[in-house]
Amino acid sequence: MPERLGDPLETPLFERVAIIGIGLIGSSIAHAVRQKNLAGSIVAIDRDTEVAARVDALGLADAIFSDVAEGVKGCDLVILCVPVGACGPVAKQMAASLREGVIVTDVGSVKGAVVASMEPHLPAHAHFIPGHPVAGTEQSGPDAGFATLFHERWCILTPAYGVDPAAVARLQEFWEGMGARIEFMSAPHHDLVLAITSHVPHLIAYNIVGTAADLEQVTQSEVIKFSAGGFRDFTRIAASDPTMWRDVFLNNKEAVLEMISRFNEDLAALARAIRWDDGDALYDLFSRTRSIRRSIIDLGQETDAPDFGRRPGKD
Amino acid sequence: MPERLGDPLETPLFERVAIIGIGLIGSSIAHAVRQKNLAGSIVAIDRDTEVAARVDALGLADAIFSDVAEGVKGCDLVILCVPVGACGPVAKQMAASLREGVIVTDVGSVKGAVVASMEPHLPAHAHFIPGHPVAGTEQSGPDAGFATLFHERWCILTPAYGVDPAAVARLQEFWEGMGARIEFMSAPHHDLVLAITSHVPHLIAYNIVGTAADLEQVTQSEVIKFSAGGFRDFTRIAASDPTMWRDVFLNNKEAVLEMISRFNEDLAALARAIRWDDGDALYDLFSRTRSIRRSIIDLGQETDAPDFGRRPGKD
Repeated sequence: MPERLGDPLETPLFERVAIIGIGLIGSSIAHAVRQKNLAGSIVAIDRDTEVAARVDALGLADAIFSDVAEGVKGCDLVILCVPVGACGPVAKQMAASLREGVIVTDVGSVKGAVVASMEPHLPAHAHFIPGHPVAGTEQSGPDAGFATLFHERWCILTPAYGVDPAAVARLQEFWEGMGARIEFMSAPHHDLVLAITSHVPHLIAYNIVGTAADLEQVTQSEVIKFSAGGFRDFTRIAASDPTMWRDVFLNNKEAVLEMISRFNEDLAALARAIRWDDGDALYDLFSRTRSIRRSIIDLGQETDAPDFGRRPGKD
Repeated sequence: MPERLGDPLETPLFERVAIIGIGLIGSSIAHAVRQKNLAGSIVAIDRDTEVAARVDALGLADAIFSDVAEGVKGCDLVILCVPVGACGPVAKQMAASLREGVIVTDVGSVKGAVVASMEPHLPAHAHFIPGHPVAGTEQSGPDAGFATLFHERWCILTPAYGVDPAAVARLQEFWEGMGARIEFMSAPHHDLVLAITSHVPHLIAYNIVGTAADLEQVTQSEVIKFSAGGFRDFTRIAASDPTMWRDVFLNNKEAVLEMISRFNEDLAALARAIRWDDGDALYDLFSRTRSIRRSIIDLGQETDAPDFGRRPGKD
């Protein structure tokens, strides 16, 4: 686990925060809010009774609701941590119960479709500021969260023109309190950036794991045994939450399909270089890609240790 | 670093081992041979004078040669740790100097092409047993090696029909002494298995890092900043040694192109599922892939810790 966050605030930023959907992200926010005293009280809302029971057992919240409309009452910050396909329906359910001046935000990996599905339902007195913390692990559920998940990770906010700057500043302070850095972007640009940095990488990871599982010339047992040659790296993100990722692809269709096309064009060129024995073309690309990893490490977004510092079979 | 190996042998398995090419694999073998007393003396052979100087400074060998024919004299085990494209030329250079009954092996990620290029040069009195330890990190050079690199990793041996079983048993014992597990396979089957578990994963990792670097709608700085969404995972194997990987693709062309075709067919089906809003097809695949990672972890080939247990920016 990364280091702990700084000291708790003396005065919380919000009176009462509602977290809707207590998975990896929702539970991590709960841990961080509690640890940093970012809100006076935490309301956890989840329609899954097993999840609600775990939230209770883990002591993640001051109050637990299954009903969204009930849960958000009196909250001055509401954070949707549900799969992006559920954001519209949840916004509709809670709309009539939202307190005057509430900040409504989300953590979805897609912004355009989330804005389109939520905005029509929200009352004019709510400040809607879509958000996306670019952080996570391959694990999911209320037990997977931890307070430092957002530490030194970027959180992208995509407020529309005209949103109250004071509300934006408060939400920024909230995320910075959890250790994140803030970047502002338009929703369409966010969706393009994430298509290449997150969505297509997940898709090709899922895809190659599927391809390997379905081969008739190589057994699944061989794929598993000899996975240390590179394949196992892909299985990590291919172990991510299926519902969340189904919704991401269905809701960022255009940008994902565009980036897949680019990927395919480049892969066709590489395959041709292999077929035609063009070793120079291969060497050129393989040299260029090293420097990008170096930059990611230098920016503190990746470990410098060989092999991610992992210790297979030892944890 | 993983745990240390077991106790050193009382009597070495070999009198004098020659390691040709002192990169990550060659230097790791040197460390492990020394630590486990697997050979009476270690001869390091590298034509690169800077590498030879590092080998000297690190104390990796008892003798250092730049000339292959000189270096292998008197050795009863010779291990080629050079890029697979160099194996044929190196075999030719050393052929006349090989001691009676020597075991000649290699560590290349391709076996068919290596056998075809080496075998014609080797004298009948040498036991040729091609090998491939499925282990590595993204780092390269004589400083990158460590004694436990092969620990609990598979080493695949592909001896031809009729090779002396006693020689094979000695080489097996040597690898097991370094902590590896042994699997026997035909060279063509090896090349198919590695195409899907290692070569194509590397190719698509190199490819997506290249695609991301070349986009005009998303800046390289954005790709780097938001890489924690999944992209950064791919940069690790895309930081592997360019010469080694160029040679792998040029020498396992048929199997790699076949596996790329499979990958492309599956990716086209996934893209179609996205285009047609077929959420069930996406969910089905995304659920199936989780169990493969579980099996890899259960077999001790991967860490159980979330996010590979990595701590970005902390190492």
